[in-house]
Amino acid sequence: MATEIVFYDIPSSLPNKAWSPNTLKTRYALNYKGLAYKTVWVEYPDIESVCRQIGAAPTRNKPDGRPHFTLPMIHDPSTGATIADSAKIAAYVDATYPDRPSLMPAGTVGLHRAFEDAAHPLIGPIYPYCLPASHALLNPVSAAYFRRTREELWGKTLENLTPAGDADRVEWKKLEDGFGKMDEWIRASGEGSKYLMGDVLCYADMWMAAYLLWLKLVLPGRWGEIASWHGGRWGTLLQNLEKYETVL
Amino acid sequence: MATEIVFYDIPSSLPNKAWSPNTLKTRYALNYKGLAYKTVWVEYPDIESVCRQIGAAPTRNKPDGRPHFTLPMIHDPSTGATIADSAKIAAYVDATYPDRPSLMPAGTVGLHRAFEDAAHPLIGPIYPYCLPASHALLNPVSAAYFRRTREELWGKTLENLTPAGDADRVEWKKLEDGFGKMDEWIRASGEGSKYLMGDVLCYADMWMAAYLLWLKLVLPGRWGEIASWHGGRWGTLLQNLEKYETVL
Repeated sequence: MATEIVFYDIPSSLPNKAWSPNTLKTRYALNYKGLAYKTVWVEYPDIESVCRQIGAAPTRNKPDGRPHFTLPMIHDPSTGATIADSAKIAAYVDATYPDRPSLMPAGTVGLHRAFEDAAHPLIGPIYPYCLPASHALLNPVSAAYFRRTREELWGKTLENLTPAGDADRVEWKKLEDGFGKMDEWIRASGEGSKYLMGDVLCYADMWMAAYLLWLKLVLPGRWGEIASWHGGRWGTLLQNLEKYETVL
Repeated sequence: MATEIVFYDIPSSLPNKAWSPNTLKTRYALNYKGLAYKTVWVEYPDIESVCRQIGAAPTRNKPDGRPHFTLPMIHDPSTGATIADSAKIAAYVDATYPDRPSLMPAGTVGLHRAFEDAAHPLIGPIYPYCLPASHALLNPVSAAYFRRTREELWGKTLENLTPAGDADRVEWKKLEDGFGKMDEWIRASGEGSKYLMGDVLCYADMWMAAYLLWLKLVLPGRWGEIASWHGGRWGTLLQNLEKYETVL
Protein backbone atom coordinates (compact mmCIF):
# COMPACT_ATOMS: atom_id res chain seq x y z
CA MET A 1 0.00 0.00 0.00
CA ALA A 2 1.32 3.40 -0.97
CA THR A 3 2.22 5.47 2.07
CA GLU A 4 3.65 8.46 0.27
CA ILE A 5 2.03 11.81 0.99
CA VAL A 6 -0.20 13.19 -1.76
CA PHE A 7 0.51 16.87 -2.38
CA TYR A 8 -2.07 18.86 -4.35
CA ASP A 9 -0.60 21.71 -6.39
CA ILE A 10 -1.71 24.02 -9.23
CA PRO A 11 0.01 23.51 -12.61
CA SER A 12 1.35 26.05 -15.10
CA SER A 13 2.97 25.83 -18.50
CA LEU A 14 6.44 26.20 -16.92
CA PRO A 15 8.77 23.20 -17.35
CA ASN A 16 8.37 22.13 -13.69
CA LYS A 17 4.72 23.27 -13.59
CA ALA A 18 5.06 24.63 -9.99
CA TRP A 19 4.67 28.41 -9.65
CA SER A 20 2.21 29.32 -6.83
CA PRO A 21 3.86 30.95 -3.79
CA ASN A 22 1.49 29.27 -1.34
CA THR A 23 2.06 25.78 -2.66
CA LEU A 24 5.81 26.45 -3.06
CA LYS A 25 5.97 26.93 0.73
CA THR A 26 4.71 23.35 1.11
CA ARG A 27 6.97 21.99 -1.64
CA TYR A 28 10.05 23.47 0.06
CA ALA A 29 8.84 22.04 3.37
CA LEU A 30 8.22 18.49 2.11
CA ASN A 31 11.55 18.38 0.24
CA TYR A 32 13.47 19.85 3.21
CA LYS A 33 12.05 17.19 5.50
CA GLY A 34 12.88 14.53 2.90
CA LEU A 35 9.38 13.07 2.97
CA ALA A 36 8.19 10.77 0.17
CA TYR A 37 5.35 12.41 -1.70
CA LYS A 38 3.77 12.61 -5.12
CA THR A 39 2.30 15.74 -6.68
CA VAL A 40 -1.26 15.72 -7.98
CA TRP A 41 -1.91 18.69 -10.25
CA VAL A 42 -5.30 20.34 -9.92
CA GLU A 43 -6.59 23.11 -12.19
CA TYR A 44 -8.27 26.06 -10.38
CA PRO A 45 -11.91 25.21 -11.27
CA ASP A 46 -11.43 21.68 -9.84
CA ILE A 47 -9.93 22.67 -6.45
CA GLU A 48 -13.22 22.79 -4.56
CA SER A 49 -14.51 19.43 -5.78
CA VAL A 50 -11.15 17.69 -5.15
CA CYS A 51 -10.99 19.14 -1.63
CA ARG A 52 -14.57 18.08 -0.87
CA GLN A 53 -13.92 14.57 -2.25
CA ILE A 54 -11.01 13.90 0.07
CA GLY A 55 -12.57 15.67 3.05
CA ALA A 56 -10.39 18.79 3.40
CA ALA A 57 -11.77 21.64 5.48
CA PRO A 58 -12.20 25.02 3.77
CA THR A 59 -9.33 27.37 4.74
CA ARG A 60 -11.63 30.38 5.03
CA ASN A 61 -14.91 31.88 3.84
CA LYS A 62 -15.48 33.81 0.63
CA PRO A 63 -16.73 37.41 0.96
CA ASP A 64 -20.28 36.11 0.47
CA GLY A 65 -19.88 33.63 3.34
CA ARG A 66 -19.55 30.43 1.29
CA PRO A 67 -16.64 28.11 2.19
CA HIS A 68 -13.42 28.73 0.28
CA PHE A 69 -11.19 25.75 -0.48
CA THR A 70 -7.57 26.42 -1.34
CA LEU A 71 -4.30 24.67 -2.13
CA PRO A 72 -1.79 23.62 -0.92
CA MET A 73 -3.39 20.55 0.60
CA ILE A 74 -1.84 17.24 1.52
CA HIS A 75 -3.29 13.84 2.26
CA ASP A 76 -1.12 11.54 4.36
CA PRO A 77 -2.18 7.89 3.96
CA SER A 78 -0.01 6.90 6.97
CA THR A 79 -2.30 8.76 9.36
CA GLY A 80 -5.39 9.39 7.24
CA ALA A 81 -4.95 13.15 7.80
CA THR A 82 -5.97 15.71 5.18
CA ILE A 83 -4.59 19.19 5.80
CA ALA A 84 -4.91 22.46 3.88
CA ASP A 85 -2.99 25.74 4.46
CA SER A 86 0.80 25.83 4.24
CA ALA A 87 1.43 26.84 7.90
CA LYS A 88 -0.88 24.09 9.17
CA ILE A 89 0.77 21.57 6.85
CA ALA A 90 4.19 22.60 8.22
CA ALA A 91 2.99 22.19 11.83
CA TYR A 92 1.45 18.80 10.93
CA VAL A 93 4.56 17.32 9.29
CA ASP A 94 6.74 18.62 12.15
CA ALA A 95 4.47 16.93 14.70
CA THR A 96 4.05 13.72 12.69
CA TYR A 97 7.68 13.30 11.55
CA PRO A 98 9.74 14.61 14.50
CA ASP A 99 12.81 12.58 13.40
CA ARG A 100 13.18 14.81 10.31
CA PRO A 101 14.65 18.35 10.34
CA SER A 102 12.23 20.82 11.93
CA LEU A 103 10.44 23.45 9.92
CA MET A 104 9.47 25.37 13.09
CA PRO A 105 12.06 24.45 15.75
CA ALA A 106 10.95 23.82 19.33
CA GLY A 107 8.50 26.40 20.62
CA THR A 108 8.51 28.63 17.54
CA VAL A 109 5.07 27.85 16.05
CA GLY A 110 3.51 30.96 17.66
CA LEU A 111 6.48 33.14 16.73
CA HIS A 112 6.17 31.85 13.16
CA ARG A 113 2.50 32.86 13.20
CA ALA A 114 3.55 36.38 14.28
CA PHE A 115 6.24 36.35 11.56
CA GLU A 116 3.63 35.64 8.88
CA ASP A 117 1.37 38.42 10.17
CA ALA A 118 4.30 40.86 10.10
CA ALA A 119 5.69 39.70 6.74
CA HIS A 120 2.50 39.48 4.70
CA PRO A 121 1.88 43.26 4.51
CA LEU A 122 5.54 43.72 3.55
CA ILE A 123 5.18 41.64 0.40
CA GLY A 124 1.81 43.23 -0.47
CA PRO A 125 3.14 45.16 -3.51
CA ILE A 126 4.05 41.82 -5.17
CA TYR A 127 0.50 40.98 -6.27
CA PRO A 128 -0.14 43.67 -8.91
CA TYR A 129 3.13 42.55 -10.55
CA CYS A 130 2.86 38.79 -10.20
CA LEU A 131 -0.85 38.15 -10.74
CA PRO A 132 -0.97 39.26 -14.42
CA ALA A 133 2.38 37.56 -15.08
CA SER A 134 1.13 34.33 -13.49
CA HIS A 135 -2.09 34.42 -15.49
CA ALA A 136 -0.04 34.33 -18.67
CA LEU A 137 1.53 31.02 -17.60
CA LEU A 138 -1.60 29.14 -16.53
CA ASN A 139 -3.34 26.48 -18.59
CA PRO A 140 -6.46 27.87 -20.34
CA VAL A 141 -9.05 26.42 -17.94
CA SER A 142 -7.22 27.86 -14.91
CA ALA A 143 -6.40 31.12 -16.69
CA ALA A 144 -10.10 31.91 -17.25
CA TYR A 145 -10.95 31.16 -13.59
CA PHE A 146 -7.94 33.13 -12.35
CA ARG A 147 -8.83 36.20 -14.46
CA ARG A 148 -12.44 36.24 -13.33
CA THR A 149 -11.71 35.83 -9.60
CA ARG A 150 -8.71 38.20 -9.47
CA GLU A 151 -10.44 40.92 -11.51
CA GLU A 152 -13.43 40.70 -9.15
CA LEU A 153 -11.15 40.97 -6.12
CA TRP A 154 -9.04 43.88 -7.40
CA GLY A 155 -11.76 45.72 -9.34
CA LYS A 156 -9.43 46.06 -12.34
CA THR A 157 -8.60 44.09 -15.46
CA LEU A 158 -5.34 42.14 -15.19
CA GLU A 159 -4.05 44.34 -18.00
CA ASN A 160 -4.53 47.44 -15.80
CA LEU A 161 -3.22 45.95 -12.58
CA THR A 162 0.58 46.23 -12.92
CA PRO A 163 1.88 49.68 -11.98
CA ALA A 164 3.61 51.64 -14.75
CA GLY A 165 5.78 54.77 -14.86
CA ASP A 166 5.91 56.68 -11.55
CA ALA A 167 3.57 54.21 -9.85
CA ASP A 168 5.93 51.41 -10.83
CA ARG A 169 8.87 53.21 -9.23
CA VAL A 170 6.88 53.83 -6.03
CA GLU A 171 5.45 50.31 -5.71
CA TRP A 172 8.67 48.56 -6.68
CA LYS A 173 10.52 50.58 -4.03
CA LYS A 174 7.88 49.54 -1.48
CA LEU A 175 8.55 45.92 -2.36
CA GLU A 176 12.31 46.45 -1.99
CA ASP A 177 11.76 48.16 1.38
CA GLY A 178 9.51 45.31 2.49
CA PHE A 179 12.29 42.83 1.81
CA GLY A 180 14.62 45.34 3.50
CA LYS A 181 12.63 44.96 6.72
CA MET A 182 12.93 41.16 6.48
CA ASP A 183 16.67 41.58 5.86
CA GLU A 184 16.82 43.56 9.15
CA TRP A 185 15.15 40.68 10.99
CA ILE A 186 17.67 38.21 9.57
CA ARG A 187 20.62 40.48 10.43
CA ALA A 188 19.25 40.83 13.99
CA SER A 189 19.79 37.07 14.36
CA GLY A 190 23.52 37.68 14.39
CA GLU A 191 26.55 38.82 12.43
CA GLY A 192 26.53 37.16 9.00
CA SER A 193 23.41 35.09 9.67
CA LYS A 194 22.17 33.34 6.53
CA TYR A 195 18.69 32.58 7.74
CA LEU A 196 16.10 34.05 10.09
CA MET A 197 17.09 31.64 12.84
CA GLY A 198 20.83 31.96 12.10
CA ASP A 199 22.51 28.98 10.43
CA VAL A 200 19.58 26.59 10.20
CA LEU A 201 16.68 26.92 7.80
CA CYS A 202 13.19 27.33 9.17
CA TYR A 203 9.69 27.67 7.73
CA ALA A 204 9.94 31.47 7.73
CA ASP A 205 12.88 31.29 5.29
CA MET A 206 10.87 29.01 3.03
CA TRP A 207 7.96 31.45 3.27
CA MET A 208 10.19 34.32 2.05
CA ALA A 209 11.82 32.09 -0.57
CA ALA A 210 8.44 31.03 -1.95
CA TYR A 211 7.54 34.65 -2.81
CA LEU A 212 11.02 35.23 -4.24
CA LEU A 213 10.76 32.12 -6.41
CA TRP A 214 7.36 33.31 -7.61
CA LEU A 215 8.97 36.60 -8.66
CA LYS A 216 11.84 34.76 -10.35
CA LEU A 217 9.54 32.38 -12.24
CA VAL A 218 6.93 34.85 -13.48
CA LEU A 219 9.05 38.03 -13.80
CA PRO A 220 12.43 36.62 -14.91
CA GLY A 221 13.44 40.00 -16.38
CA ARG A 222 13.46 41.66 -12.95
CA TRP A 223 15.02 38.80 -11.01
CA GLY A 224 18.61 40.01 -11.44
CA GLU A 225 17.76 43.23 -9.64
CA ILE A 226 15.87 41.52 -6.82
CA ALA A 227 18.67 38.97 -6.38
CA SER A 228 21.09 41.85 -5.77
CA TRP A 229 18.97 43.65 -3.12
CA HIS A 230 20.39 43.80 0.42
CA GLY A 231 23.87 42.60 -0.35
CA GLY A 232 22.65 39.77 -2.57
CA ARG A 233 20.75 38.18 0.32
CA TRP A 234 17.82 37.01 -1.81
CA GLY A 235 19.79 35.59 -4.71
CA THR A 236 21.84 33.58 -2.23
CA LEU A 237 18.72 32.42 -0.37
CA LEU A 238 17.15 30.98 -3.54
CA GLN A 239 20.45 29.32 -4.51
CA ASN A 240 20.65 27.69 -1.08
CA LEU A 241 17.09 26.43 -1.37
CA GLU A 242 17.30 25.32 -5.00
CA LYS A 243 17.78 21.69 -3.97
CA TYR A 244 14.37 21.83 -2.27
CA GLU A 245 12.52 22.98 -5.41
CA THR A 246 12.35 19.40 -6.72
CA VAL A 247 9.00 18.27 -8.09
CA LEU A 248 8.22 14.67 -7.08
CA MET B 1 33.81 47.72 43.11
CA ALA B 2 30.12 47.57 42.36
CA THR B 3 29.36 45.28 39.45
CA GLU B 4 25.60 45.50 39.54
CA ILE B 5 23.87 46.70 36.42
CA VAL B 6 22.50 50.25 36.52
CA PHE B 7 18.98 50.40 35.08
CA TYR B 8 17.61 53.84 34.17
CA ASP B 9 13.82 54.11 34.54
CA ILE B 10 11.21 56.90 34.65
CA PRO B 11 9.44 57.47 38.02
CA SER B 12 5.80 58.11 38.82
CA SER B 13 3.83 58.78 41.99
CA LEU B 14 2.79 55.10 42.17
CA PRO B 15 4.06 53.18 45.23
CA ASN B 16 6.66 51.24 43.16
CA LYS B 17 7.31 54.23 40.85
CA ALA B 18 7.60 51.99 37.74
CA TRP B 19 4.87 52.47 35.12
CA SER B 20 6.37 52.87 31.59
CA PRO B 21 5.67 49.93 29.25
CA ASN B 22 9.05 50.22 27.54
CA THR B 23 11.07 50.19 30.74
CA LEU B 24 8.79 47.48 32.22
CA LYS B 25 9.98 45.19 29.41
CA THR B 26 13.53 45.61 30.71
CA ARG B 27 12.51 45.28 34.37
CA TYR B 28 10.77 41.95 33.65
CA ALA B 29 13.85 40.84 31.70
CA LEU B 30 16.42 41.72 34.39
CA ASN B 31 14.34 40.13 37.15
CA TYR B 32 13.62 37.00 35.09
CA LYS B 33 17.34 36.54 34.46
CA GLY B 34 18.01 37.13 38.17
CA LEU B 35 20.67 39.76 37.46
CA ALA B 36 21.83 42.12 40.21
CA TYR B 37 20.86 45.68 39.33
CA LYS B 38 19.89 48.96 40.86
CA THR B 39 17.30 51.37 39.49
CA VAL B 40 18.24 54.99 38.86
CA TRP B 41 15.14 57.15 38.41
CA VAL B 42 15.35 59.84 35.74
CA GLU B 43 12.68 62.48 35.12
CA TYR B 44 11.78 63.07 31.45
CA PRO B 45 13.58 66.44 30.98
CA ASP B 46 16.83 64.85 32.25
CA ILE B 47 16.86 61.75 30.02
CA GLU B 48 18.94 63.30 27.23
CA SER B 49 21.66 64.71 29.49
CA VAL B 50 21.93 61.48 31.52
CA CYS B 51 22.20 59.41 28.31
CA ARG B 52 24.85 61.74 26.86
CA GLN B 53 26.84 61.68 30.13
CA ILE B 54 27.18 57.91 30.19
CA GLY B 55 27.65 57.59 26.44
CA ALA B 56 24.41 55.95 25.30
CA ALA B 57 23.57 56.13 21.61
CA PRO B 58 20.29 57.79 20.63
CA THR B 59 17.66 55.16 19.81
CA ARG B 60 16.30 57.12 16.87
CA ASN B 61 15.93 60.61 15.41
CA LYS B 62 13.24 63.14 16.24
CA PRO B 63 10.99 64.31 13.37
CA ASP B 64 13.30 67.35 12.95
CA GLY B 65 16.34 65.09 12.59
CA ARG B 66 17.92 65.72 16.01
CA PRO B 67 18.98 62.63 18.01
CA HIS B 68 16.31 61.22 20.33
CA PHE B 69 17.48 59.56 23.56
CA THR B 70 15.07 57.22 25.32
CA LEU B 71 14.79 54.89 28.29
CA PRO B 72 15.13 52.06 29.15
CA MET B 73 18.91 52.16 29.21
CA ILE B 74 21.32 50.03 31.18
CA HIS B 75 24.97 50.43 32.05
CA ASP B 76 26.83 47.22 32.88
CA PRO B 77 30.04 47.95 34.85
CA SER B 78 31.25 44.34 34.29
CA THR B 79 31.70 44.94 30.58
CA GLY B 80 31.53 48.74 30.32
CA ALA B 81 28.59 48.44 27.93
CA THR B 82 25.81 51.05 27.80
CA ILE B 83 22.72 49.91 25.92
CA ALA B 84 19.40 51.63 25.20
CA ASP B 85 16.23 50.09 23.71
CA SER B 86 14.50 47.17 25.41
CA ALA B 87 14.98 44.62 22.60
CA LYS B 88 18.70 45.46 22.34
CA ILE B 89 19.05 45.23 26.12
CA ALA B 90 17.40 41.79 26.03
CA ALA B 91 19.76 40.59 23.30
CA TYR B 92 22.76 42.02 25.21
CA VAL B 93 21.95 40.34 28.55
CA ASP B 94 21.23 37.03 26.78
CA ALA B 95 24.62 37.19 25.04
CA THR B 96 26.51 38.40 28.12
CA TYR B 97 24.87 36.11 30.71
CA PRO B 98 24.22 32.86 28.81
CA ASP B 99 24.13 30.82 32.05
CA ARG B 100 20.86 32.56 33.03
CA PRO B 101 17.41 31.71 31.58
CA SER B 102 17.10 32.96 27.99
CA LEU B 103 14.87 35.85 27.03
CA MET B 104 15.09 34.96 23.35
CA PRO B 105 15.88 31.23 23.17
CA ALA B 106 18.36 29.94 20.59
CA GLY B 107 17.89 31.41 17.15
CA THR B 108 14.76 33.43 17.94
CA VAL B 109 16.16 36.98 17.96
CA GLY B 110 15.01 37.61 14.38
CA LEU B 111 11.62 35.97 15.00
CA HIS B 112 11.25 38.19 18.07
CA ARG B 113 11.97 41.23 15.88
CA ALA B 114 9.18 40.11 13.53
CA PHE B 115 6.93 39.53 16.56
CA GLU B 116 7.43 43.14 17.69
CA ASP B 117 6.68 44.48 14.21
CA ALA B 118 3.47 42.40 14.09
CA ALA B 119 2.40 43.14 17.67
CA HIS B 120 3.01 46.88 17.81
CA PRO B 121 0.16 47.88 15.47
CA LEU B 122 -2.15 45.53 17.43
CA ILE B 123 -1.69 47.46 20.67
CA GLY B 124 -1.94 50.85 18.89
CA PRO B 125 -5.34 51.75 20.43
CA ILE B 126 -3.74 51.66 23.90
CA TYR B 127 -2.09 55.08 23.63
CA PRO B 128 -5.11 57.42 23.61
CA TYR B 129 -6.26 55.65 26.77
CA CYS B 130 -2.97 55.28 28.62
CA LEU B 131 -1.16 58.52 27.78
CA PRO B 132 -3.57 60.89 29.61
CA ALA B 133 -3.89 58.42 32.51
CA SER B 134 -0.07 58.16 32.76
CA HIS B 135 0.32 61.94 32.70
CA ALA B 136 -1.82 62.15 35.84
CA LEU B 137 0.66 59.92 37.69
CA LEU B 138 3.91 61.62 36.71
CA ASN B 139 5.89 63.97 38.94
CA PRO B 140 5.31 67.65 37.99
CA VAL B 141 8.58 68.17 36.09
CA SER B 142 7.96 65.07 33.95
CA ALA B 143 4.23 65.76 33.60
CA ALA B 144 4.90 69.14 31.93
CA TYR B 145 7.41 67.61 29.50
CA PHE B 146 5.11 64.65 28.76
CA ARG B 147 2.11 66.91 28.07
CA ARG B 148 4.05 69.14 25.70
CA THR B 149 5.67 66.33 23.69
CA ARG B 150 2.58 64.08 23.51
CA GLU B 151 0.24 66.94 22.57
CA GLU B 152 2.67 67.93 19.79
CA LEU B 153 2.81 64.34 18.53
CA TRP B 154 -0.94 63.69 18.61
CA GLY B 155 -2.13 67.21 17.69
CA LYS B 156 -4.67 67.12 20.55
CA THR B 157 -4.74 68.08 24.21
CA LEU B 158 -4.41 65.14 26.56
CA GLU B 159 -7.94 65.95 27.76
CA ASN B 160 -9.27 65.36 24.23
CA LEU B 161 -7.25 62.25 23.46
CA THR B 162 -9.18 59.44 25.16
CA PRO B 163 -12.11 58.17 23.05
CA ALA B 164 -15.57 58.61 24.55
CA GLY B 165 -19.03 57.26 23.71
CA ASP B 166 -19.21 55.39 20.41
CA ALA B 167 -15.53 56.03 19.68
CA ASP B 168 -14.67 54.42 23.01
CA ARG B 169 -16.63 51.28 22.10
CA VAL B 170 -14.94 51.07 18.69
CA GLU B 171 -11.38 51.70 19.91
CA TRP B 172 -11.71 49.50 22.99
CA LYS B 173 -12.97 46.65 20.78
CA LYS B 174 -9.94 47.18 18.50
CA LEU B 175 -7.68 46.79 21.51
CA GLU B 176 -9.49 43.61 22.56
CA ASP B 177 -9.20 42.25 19.02
CA GLY B 178 -5.50 43.11 18.96
CA PHE B 179 -4.94 41.03 22.06
CA GLY B 180 -7.20 38.43 20.43
CA LYS B 181 -4.70 38.08 17.59
CA MET B 182 -1.87 37.62 20.11
CA ASP B 183 -4.01 35.02 21.89
CA GLU B 184 -4.25 33.16 18.54
CA TRP B 185 -0.46 33.14 18.25
CA ILE B 186 -0.14 31.70 21.75
CA ARG B 187 -2.80 29.07 21.09
CA ALA B 188 -0.99 28.11 17.86
CA SER B 189 1.96 27.08 20.05
CA GLY B 190 -0.03 24.10 21.24
CA GLU B 191 -3.06 22.95 23.23
CA GLY B 192 -3.19 24.82 26.55
CA SER B 193 0.06 26.73 25.98
CA LYS B 194 0.62 29.40 28.63
CA TYR B 195 3.20 31.42 26.75
CA LEU B 196 4.09 32.26 23.15
CA MET B 197 6.80 29.58 23.09
CA GLY B 198 4.66 27.07 25.03
CA ASP B 199 5.66 26.38 28.63
CA VAL B 200 8.70 28.65 28.94
CA LEU B 201 8.60 32.43 29.16
CA CYS B 202 10.29 34.46 26.46
CA TYR B 203 10.85 38.16 25.78
CA ALA B 204 7.69 38.32 23.64
CA ASP B 205 5.58 37.37 26.69
CA MET B 206 7.27 40.10 28.72
CA TRP B 207 6.60 42.52 25.86
CA MET B 208 2.87 41.75 25.98
CA ALA B 209 2.85 41.75 29.79
CA ALA B 210 4.50 45.18 29.92
CA TYR B 211 1.60 46.77 27.99
CA LEU B 212 -0.92 44.88 30.12
CA LEU B 213 0.77 46.04 33.33
CA TRP B 214 0.70 49.60 31.99
CA LEU B 215 -3.08 49.25 31.48
CA LYS B 216 -3.49 47.74 34.95
CA LEU B 217 -1.45 50.48 36.66
CA VAL B 218 -2.88 53.55 34.94
CA LEU B 219 -6.45 52.34 34.22
CA PRO B 220 -7.19 50.14 37.24
CA GLY B 221 -10.94 50.51 36.72
CA ARG B 222 -10.81 48.67 33.40
CA TRP B 223 -8.34 45.96 34.41
CA GLY B 224 -10.99 43.46 35.55
CA GLU B 225 -12.45 43.42 32.05
CA ILE B 226 -9.08 43.11 30.31
CA ALA B 227 -8.00 40.35 32.70
CA SER B 228 -11.03 38.33 31.61
CA TRP B 229 -10.51 38.64 27.85
CA HIS B 230 -9.67 35.45 25.94
CA GLY B 231 -10.48 33.01 28.68
CA GLY B 232 -8.64 35.01 31.32
CA ARG B 233 -5.34 34.66 29.45
CA TRP B 234 -4.09 38.15 30.34
CA GLY B 235 -5.01 38.14 34.02
CA THR B 236 -3.18 34.83 34.37
CA LEU B 237 -0.17 36.13 32.44
CA LEU B 238 0.27 39.11 34.77
CA GLN B 239 -0.16 36.87 37.83
CA ASN B 240 2.53 34.52 36.51
CA LEU B 241 4.89 37.44 35.93
CA GLU B 242 4.13 39.28 39.16
CA LYS B 243 7.32 37.94 40.77
CA TYR B 244 9.33 39.69 38.05
CA GLU B 245 7.83 43.14 38.77
CA THR B 246 10.22 43.68 41.69
CA VAL B 247 11.92 47.07 41.83
CA LEU B 248 15.56 46.72 42.90
